[in-house]
Amino acid sequence: MKKLILVRHGESAWNKLNLFTGWTDVDLTEAGMKEAYEAGKLLKAEGFRPEICFTSYLKRAVKTLNQILDAMDMDYLPVEKSWRLNEKSYGAIQGLNKADTAAKYGDEQVLLWRRSFDVQPPALDMHEERSPRMDPRYNELSDAEIPLTESLKDTIARLMPYYEGAILKAFDKHDTVMVVAHGNSLRGIVKQLRGMSNEEIIKFNIPTATPYVFEFDNTMKLQKDYFVGDQEEIARKMQSVANQAKKK
Amino acid sequence: MKKLILVRHGESAWNKLNLFTGWTDVDLTEAGMKEAYEAGKLLKAEGFRPEICFTSYLKRAVKTLNQILDAMDMDYLPVEKSWRLNEKSYGAIQGLNKADTAAKYGDEQVLLWRRSFDVQPPALDMHEERSPRMDPRYNELSDAEIPLTESLKDTIARLMPYYEGAILKAFDKHDTVMVVAHGNSLRGIVKQLRGMSNEEIIKFNIPTATPYVFEFDNTMKLQKDYFVGDQEEIARKMQSVANQAKKK
Repeated sequence: MKKLILVRHGESAWNKLNLFTGWTDVDLTEAGMKEAYEAGKLLKAEGFRPEICFTSYLKRAVKTLNQILDAMDMDYLPVEKSWRLNEKSYGAIQGLNKADTAAKYGDEQVLLWRRSFDVQPPALDMHEERSPRMDPRYNELSDAEIPLTESLKDTIARLMPYYEGAILKAFDKHDTVMVVAHGNSLRGIVKQLRGMSNEEIIKFNIPTATPYVFEFDNTMKLQKDYFVGDQEEIARKMQSVANQAKKK
Repeated sequence: MKKLILVRHGESAWNKLNLFTGWTDVDLTEAGMKEAYEAGKLLKAEGFRPEICFTSYLKRAVKTLNQILDAMDMDYLPVEKSWRLNEKSYGAIQGLNKADTAAKYGDEQVLLWRRSFDVQPPALDMHEERSPRMDPRYNELSDAEIPLTESLKDTIARLMPYYEGAILKAFDKHDTVMVVAHGNSLRGIVKQLRGMSNEEIIKFNIPTATPYVFEFDNTMKLQKDYFVGDQEEIARKMQSVANQAKKK
């Protein structure tokens, strides 16, 4: 049997402040570090043994993975990092408060920016300070690859080559693969695996630091998927994410 | 100009207890986590920008590297891990107190086990609990590659293929490379780079969590080497390592 374990990063400083984060490289909070470590303890207790891990270029995901591996005493596992697993770019609204933005533009518009399949938030300028073009970690990207804003559709489009070429490919050699990433990059993977419609994936909320496991047979046909942990706590976490963009 | 940055892991739980550690996967202490983070802040303040990192399969090295990268806001850097960068195996004396062992066998014998070039401590059995053969992370190693005990000569012999094939090779594509490892695996690299004799390298103590930089011209000819940081503090740290195996 083959297993893919997806984990969304723990609480970040801007989750807590309720700001749009996107490609901004904000840190985990203490609570985020702790929930990540707990996720690792849970995976260890349940007997999961990943053989290779993938994460993004953003420290909230990398540090969540580091915490998980440390809790599992598997700090030695190989880890591959890719910008293609980064969160959806929120363009020029990165750094704005979600509730304020909702009060100003309306829940509908903000929900479109957050959750429509193909509506992009306003774009960054290529050469402004917040642009990924100004950050040396993205030097390998061409201008055309630099996202100045993204819809979920755009996020999935840049994710897919890596999902297929690296993550799925890893199952040629390994039985258990772990991906630690972000709400929207993980949505892309979940949509693909579960054959969800554009509307369904928009409404699907992935709780933070909660292992989401997909089991496959040896031909990589999906057998089942489930969240690991206390199911009531998981339902509460999913609802909490859904409420974030509502007006206060 | 090309730069190789070597860093020995911060204080581990068994450094603090003064036990022989070797391949035992002990954790960093709080002080060790902190000194690792400080090393990262120092590297950042001094303008170092590594492009790729190498570390061992042991969590005290991996976590030292994670702390350094986090302090530098470079959590996204590629990291390759190899068992060949592990500490020297101390065989059957792993877990014994250094001072007690010195009191029992004499400073001379312990200094031989710790620092002779080619004397091995007593060996582990292949199938005892402490043997790397019993640890799934080393499944990729053949029985012949599993070290049941090592002299410094043995450590260098298993390190060199990786040093030449991966670390030096990285300079084909990169200008600055960082290696976070252990007292004796780093001794192998320093001996090679500085052309030290077997006697010289035995007496050379690498302080913990202190960046040791080698600068090369573009043909990889060594230009200079230096420790980064407060030079008096570094001298104190080097002396402290040298005193560890002396009787109390």
